[in-house]
Amino acid sequence: MLFNRIVSKGLAHYSYLVGDKFEAVVIDPRLDCEVYVERASSEGMRITHILETHRNEDYVAGSAELASRTGAQVWHADSQWDYRYGLAAKDGQKWKTGRLEIEAIHTPGHTSGSMSYLLRDPGGLPWVVFTGDVLFAGEVGRIDLMGKDKAPEMAGLLYDSIFRRLLTLGDQVLVCPAHGAGSVCGEAIAERLWTTIGLERLHNPRLLHTDLDAFVADLLKSQPERPPYFTQMEKLNLEGAKLKRLPDPKPLSPKDFANMVEDAFVLDIRRELDFGAAHVPGAQSIWKDGMASFVGWYVPYEKPILVVTETNEPSEAFRILLREGYDNIAGFLAGGMLGWHMSGLNSASIKTLTVQELCRMLDKELYKEGPDSIHILDVRSDEELRKDGQVPKAQHIHVTQIPGRMKEVPRDRTVYVFCGSGLRSMIAASFLERNGWKNLAVVLGGMAGWKSIKCTISK
Amino acid sequence: MLFNRIVSKGLAHYSYLVGDKFEAVVIDPRLDCEVYVERASSEGMRITHILETHRNEDYVAGSAELASRTGAQVWHADSQWDYRYGLAAKDGQKWKTGRLEIEAIHTPGHTSGSMSYLLRDPGGLPWVVFTGDVLFAGEVGRIDLMGKDKAPEMAGLLYDSIFRRLLTLGDQVLVCPAHGAGSVCGEAIAERLWTTIGLERLHNPRLLHTDLDAFVADLLKSQPERPPYFTQMEKLNLEGAKLKRLPDPKPLSPKDFANMVEDAFVLDIRRELDFGAAHVPGAQSIWKDGMASFVGWYVPYEKPILVVTETNEPSEAFRILLREGYDNIAGFLAGGMLGWHMSGLNSASIKTLTVQELCRMLDKELYKEGPDSIHILDVRSDEELRKDGQVPKAQHIHVTQIPGRMKEVPRDRTVYVFCGSGLRSMIAASFLERNGWKNLAVVLGGMAGWKSIKCTISK
Amino acid sequence: MLFNRIVSKGLAHYSYLVGDKFEAVVIDPRLDCEVYVERASSEGMRITHILETHRNEDYVAGSAELASRTGAQVWHADSQWDYRYGLAAKDGQKWKTGRLEIEAIHTPGHTSGSMSYLLRDPGGLPWVVFTGDVLFAGEVGRIDLMGKDKAPEMAGLLYDSIFRRLLTLGDQVLVCPAHGAGSVCGEAIAERLWTTIGLERLHNPRLLHTDLDAFVADLLKSQPERPPYFTQMEKLNLEGAKLKRLPDPKPLSPKDFANMVEDAFVLDIRRELDFGAAHVPGAQSIWKDGMASFVGWYVPYEKPILVVTETNEPSEAFRILLREGYDNIAGFLAGGMLGWHMSGLNSASIKTLTVQELCRMLDKELYKEGPDSIHILDVRSDEELRKDGQVPKAQHIHVTQIPGRMKEVPRDRTVYVFCGSGLRSMIAASFLERNGWKNLAVVLGGMAGWKSIKCTISK
Amino acid sequence: MLFNRIVSKGLAHYSYLVGDKFEAVVIDPRLDCEVYVERASSEGMRITHILETHRNEDYVAGSAELASRTGAQVWHADSQWDYRYGLAAKDGQKWKTGRLEIEAIHTPGHTSGSMSYLLRDPGGLPWVVFTGDVLFAGEVGRIDLMGKDKAPEMAGLLYDSIFRRLLTLGDQVLVCPAHGAGSVCGEAIAERLWTTIGLERLHNPRLLHTDLDAFVADLLKSQPERPPYFTQMEKLNLEGAKLKRLPDPKPLSPKDFANMVEDAFVLDIRRELDFGAAHVPGAQSIWKDGMASFVGWYVPYEKPILVVTETNEPSEAFRILLREGYDNIAGFLAGGMLGWHMSGLNSASIKTLTVQELCRMLDKELYKEGPDSIHILDVRSDEELRKDGQVPKAQHIHVTQIPGRMKEVPRDRTVYVFCGSGLRSMIAASFLERNGWKNLAVVLGGMAGWKSIKCTISK
Repeated sequence: MLFNRIVSKGLAHYSYLVGDKFEAVVIDPRLDCEVYVERASSEGMRITHILETHRNEDYVAGSAELASRTGAQVWHADSQWDYRYGLAAKDGQKWKTGRLEIEAIHTPGHTSGSMSYLLRDPGGLPWVVFTGDVLFAGEVGRIDLMGKDKAPEMAGLLYDSIFRRLLTLGDQVLVCPAHGAGSVCGEAIAERLWTTIGLERLHNPRLLHTDLDAFVADLLKSQPERPPYFTQMEKLNLEGAKLKRLPDPKPLSPKDFANMVEDAFVLDIRRELDFGAAHVPGAQSIWKDGMASFVGWYVPYEKPILVVTETNEPSEAFRILLREGYDNIAGFLAGGMLGWHMSGLNSASIKTLTVQELCRMLDKELYKEGPDSIHILDVRSDEELRKDGQVPKAQHIHVTQIPGRMKEVPRDRTVYVFCGSGLRSMIAASFLERNGWKNLAVVLGGMAGWKSIKCTISK
Repeated sequence: MLFNRIVSKGLAHYSYLVGDKFEAVVIDPRLDCEVYVERASSEGMRITHILETHRNEDYVAGSAELASRTGAQVWHADSQWDYRYGLAAKDGQKWKTGRLEIEAIHTPGHTSGSMSYLLRDPGGLPWVVFTGDVLFAGEVGRIDLMGKDKAPEMAGLLYDSIFRRLLTLGDQVLVCPAHGAGSVCGEAIAERLWTTIGLERLHNPRLLHTDLDAFVADLLKSQPERPPYFTQMEKLNLEGAKLKRLPDPKPLSPKDFANMVEDAFVLDIRRELDFGAAHVPGAQSIWKDGMASFVGWYVPYEKPILVVTETNEPSEAFRILLREGYDNIAGFLAGGMLGWHMSGLNSASIKTLTVQELCRMLDKELYKEGPDSIHILDVRSDEELRKDGQVPKAQHIHVTQIPGRMKEVPRDRTVYVFCGSGLRSMIAASFLERNGWKNLAVVLGGMAGWKSIKCTISK
Repeated sequence: MLFNRIVSKGLAHYSYLVGDKFEAVVIDPRLDCEVYVERASSEGMRITHILETHRNEDYVAGSAELASRTGAQVWHADSQWDYRYGLAAKDGQKWKTGRLEIEAIHTPGHTSGSMSYLLRDPGGLPWVVFTGDVLFAGEVGRIDLMGKDKAPEMAGLLYDSIFRRLLTLGDQVLVCPAHGAGSVCGEAIAERLWTTIGLERLHNPRLLHTDLDAFVADLLKSQPERPPYFTQMEKLNLEGAKLKRLPDPKPLSPKDFANMVEDAFVLDIRRELDFGAAHVPGAQSIWKDGMASFVGWYVPYEKPILVVTETNEPSEAFRILLREGYDNIAGFLAGGMLGWHMSGLNSASIKTLTVQELCRMLDKELYKEGPDSIHILDVRSDEELRKDGQVPKAQHIHVTQIPGRMKEVPRDRTVYVFCGSGLRSMIAASFLERNGWKNLAVVLGGMAGWKSIKCTISK
Repeated sequence: MLFNRIVSKGLAHYSYLVGDKFEAVVIDPRLDCEVYVERASSEGMRITHILETHRNEDYVAGSAELASRTGAQVWHADSQWDYRYGLAAKDGQKWKTGRLEIEAIHTPGHTSGSMSYLLRDPGGLPWVVFTGDVLFAGEVGRIDLMGKDKAPEMAGLLYDSIFRRLLTLGDQVLVCPAHGAGSVCGEAIAERLWTTIGLERLHNPRLLHTDLDAFVADLLKSQPERPPYFTQMEKLNLEGAKLKRLPDPKPLSPKDFANMVEDAFVLDIRRELDFGAAHVPGAQSIWKDGMASFVGWYVPYEKPILVVTETNEPSEAFRILLREGYDNIAGFLAGGMLGWHMSGLNSASIKTLTVQELCRMLDKELYKEGPDSIHILDVRSDEELRKDGQVPKAQHIHVTQIPGRMKEVPRDRTVYVFCGSGLRSMIAASFLERNGWKNLAVVLGGMAGWKSIKCTISK
């Protein structure tokens, strides 16, 4: 028997490969789907079915691609939408794979047609339920995808799906959702990689509201922003994306890269220190592990993308872009910034400072007013502000909202960008720099560092 | 947060690496312990504690070795025995690793001092219990290790440990035992890699006996054999085995190999077809994936071991031998049997036949009597015979009991050795060949094949 | 600077990746060309040119495919033929890659338009010459590809190319040919992986004939057979083969495999012992490392291919088939022969025996005559017979000629098939079995084993 | 036949594994010698002999270690010294490995007892000569190791060794030295990875002086500095270093790391941009690929070493330290500088600037005099200055001489450190920072960038 969770890092996307004897089933595959083909094959199993828990909106599904490679049947949830390929799964429908059985459970709420899939083990006992974006560890699915106006209705459906159809499976059943901690599909997803119906029933903060109205009210209170790229993903996933092959790396000499900059979007995936020290003028910073979460907010689909890395190995970054629907990757900077500088090309920099320095500055300047007073821009989420506290006098705009709200950031003073660690700060700072801000500084260590030093500010 | 199960294939041994922030804990490490060091380190975590669930008897524990590499503290269960290293864990004792907490729960029964360890997640909730050899998926631990006479008493302790201390943790808690399906520590272990307290409470056949007496009676009814190597393992594990480095592969030319055969034990880890077709005279067959289960029954500790493989890559086999306490590995046959034959060295063979051929022979000879009648030796377990049925007129001796009971096997007729697939048959056949039997044949496909063909025998 | 030889095992095909600064050139790429893309990219180099030494006949060239992945220009030799893509290289033409320079040298003889390429190092000195199939280590190219009748003329051209254009480069220049020992393109290629103009001038047996007539006469004396698949390769290489992606592994359950056998070609790539012990009835044996040399002689292009391996990892085998132009691979037998037998499917076997047994039989039967006398079929090459000697009374048909000359092999007696080791014997034996021969046996160890035992046959 | 060059990057150290049939020989192994054991074994070859070309001074030889793992015999050159292990090779001595033969050729000059080893191929022809540190591609060995006073005498011996014993082997013979481009053992080693006697005779600039006196004069003219660590290496190599196992990675939390800083040496192996942006106060910068060349000049043997990397994967760095004889590695900073800052620990920074900025400053300040004028410190080699030109008014001290000559660097002005790319500049700058210099800046891109921009300075 084969039971594999495949984690797509960054996305915190989970897909599953389940098999027995000579057959296997994949739940919610990603586009770069060779991992399923190879693992199943190395177990001597042929993938016969692909099951989707819902029409995905946060990444490109690999169902059509995987079907074309293996001959497997695709079964869609959300059959209210018009798919160009595959079949519509129905509540109660069953599939066999070797001695295992899988049964569809209609669990609307995240979308109207969301399905969960209950896996029974060779002995026939309910063992694992794949809950898609309906129920996560410590969180439930977002309810705004059918439109903000429909959110209350969807919240009600979600309540029924969870309390009447999932919790009733029994505390002992394992819960395997489509996302883990770090996903945009649920900000408060808990870190436990493995969970159960009982753990969720007892400890999921959303489910502590056992009353319908309280449950709905709690959900409506804290709704996340809708990323602009969801629309693109939804469209692709109805059409069925195909992949000729993984994108080739395409090294570009510094001169060639420089010549292409004007018509392209430069994405620098190095960390905050390197980027701060020197970057291609006009580059947008998004460090590699943050790409899955943030490219959809910052990187346009229309322009070719030029990637800057530390090394000559951009493949993982290209793969992440692919999963987010970016298929126009022009290449990467061969030799990195070292090569850039050795070719005599000019670079820009963004100042970085430690929390100790910030503390000293605040101590001196906190009570100053006017154009030369210090300005702090905190790009963390509301949730983080609530949980981890704030720095004095900081302006708060979440990192994903900077592009839409940049006008609120002053241009005439040094802006000290602040987040949890310094990584998201550099995203925001580089965006502001691209849009003409001149005096920017990123605070290294962010709130984690700040709390450690216990800065005291004299009156 | 880091939560990793490390599976030692063949042994079906599970160990666990759990960590958070800059610290990690290992539960029941194996001797070749670089896997823990490397994974923890790649997460930036230092291993600070090593917890044992019991004094292991079926493999060499890596606690002493891992402690010497990392500086971690070793905490033993079974402190009734005299360890040369480490400290004694106590019921209720707690350890912190980052934001996680682990608590010892005394769960005697498999051994008197067995400990389970309850892991609480960063929010403090009971999440996973490491149950060692006390509770498996679909099975419980064996109770004969303190002596056959003490088995009833141990069974009673096990009852209390499981029903009063483990099941009371709640159906929702995940259960992480020290072994999975295929281990000698529990013949009927279920295939589900992940399980929960609730799944065991509801479906573990042992736990369906909720009454103490019924539970004990059921356990005493089916006690597995005690492998001869347990004594060696127990001794090593009290002393604390160390490992200078993994054994080097040591290729031997066919001539050098041939010269060493006389004073060594030749272990051939190829599959049944290759071995049957040609093998070094005097070699014992144990196919690679069966090594962990069977070397302890067949391979002596006193002699240097010579290994025959198909390729020049014996490292995994050497590693399995190491885990079973064999540290005198003389080398492997460079170039495999092809090189052996090309050097003009002679080989032996054991006949193989298909189930179709067996069926035809049985049809012809079933009712013959006397010295020229067909003799079938079935080396499967009682459990398999019960579950999968039998072939007509077969003698039954479990593969592990062949060395002790070979006198019961006739020498004057062709012995057709039979198991589930042909693999274990070749172990038995090669053992008999080494001990002078001349007419041996192995049935390919075994009971799996036999059942598929629906052989009908005319009267 | 980057200088890489890429070896395609089995084919003994050598291609080369040469680069400097941000650019690279590939000489004679193979179809599965991701190796060039990835290595060049990891050095930060873009592949700008692809140079062919000749229109290849023994494998599918990857020039068109690599060009479509990288945008590189393809430069063909043999511009007398009508290529559907790429440009025609001219004698004396030069290319730059970083600080390196490459110059084309027209060296006809193997084909009319064969080119060698001289690489100059950053200091401008003649450093390496890529000689394609014109000059190998210890051998020269075959001269029969333009037709047997043109062989004398081609031999003369080859003489000029080697003596006037290559040897004159100087003894110190490194020679990098398109093949190494084991290729069908030159039976006597020496084992030295690295060689020089001087080493060839002094030691290549062909070049010891410094006189034109002697050189030609020597070449005409020993002309190898033309494999039937050359025609297919030549056609593909003028058209420019493309590759969507590497073939997926496609596991087939034993039942599915069995159902497809009738309309497919079953290719068993296991070694001689496994195949002899049991194989799918009707399967053709070609052990994996022998595939590149022998599939073209035995495997038809028209039928879907079913592959039998020991494990569930057929990818390397599929890759070899691809390089030889086979793109209709139906799948592989999941679970190997163990799974086959466990599914109750029947198998065939071919007897194997040791050289000791052969010796005893010859001793007994050598001077027998008539239908029950022993018949030995030696499938080695003329060259091997000359060099390594013969067994008494053997019939000699080279392994590649068995399909065309099988009628010469007696059907009424046991045929003992003999080669250098037993591997090629099983190719021939399985072919005969497929064509109705009943009594076949393969001699393990072949001539290597035979010579080691010094068999004496009494009169 | 097996012929493998094993490259230890950074060191630009070449060792060789040569084998045939069931035996293999290693020339000049490194200390972390599992690579030889594994490759030989995967070919079915046992390492029987280890040959040293000379007593190495620039890395720790692995002969004693490899011998203890394989049972191979060690044969030393330089038997004038007192080895604690192994045997003394003699001029003309021969060894067999399979069908290959190796012969010792006494070639003094680099050391008095240096040996070259001539390898004959299976046909007996002189094929490859292993020249150790006597003859490199484009360079010859240094002659100062027996003392500066003995250099003229050694130069004479070297002349004889090369002209009388090596060049006489014939132009066609391949030359395999112990180092390639980038080694401290020969500054001007050419980039060609493969070379021949003829290529060296015709193009090696040292060998263009065919007259003894001219050859010696040329050598004496340009003698490299003797690194301080050579003494340590020489001692270790006479004793025979052993290795229990590769050093474990040892992650340290930022707090633990910070607590250990005072008594340790902090080595930061990140690149110039990261280091410049933020580093642990007191850290010495040596980027990873520069470690082999520079740790011996900057890192003391007495103190425990703490390593700062970008990631949690310090193993390669630890391996390089090991090869240079550093066995007291206290650990690495878990989580890198991101973790450091998030723990609220303070960091230092060194300014970086582009060549464009340098140009503008020079334009403004070149003709200023006195304490506020710009000061450029160029740390490139004499050779580079000669070849690539200079920047105006720069002070020149080679990077390896900074520790001994730092007093010459002004403390009262901003020092702009300059090299070929910016990497070595950061080594020098961080050293000065550790020694109290306050105003330091590193020029990104160095001379490569400088030449590209064609800076014009107004008068």
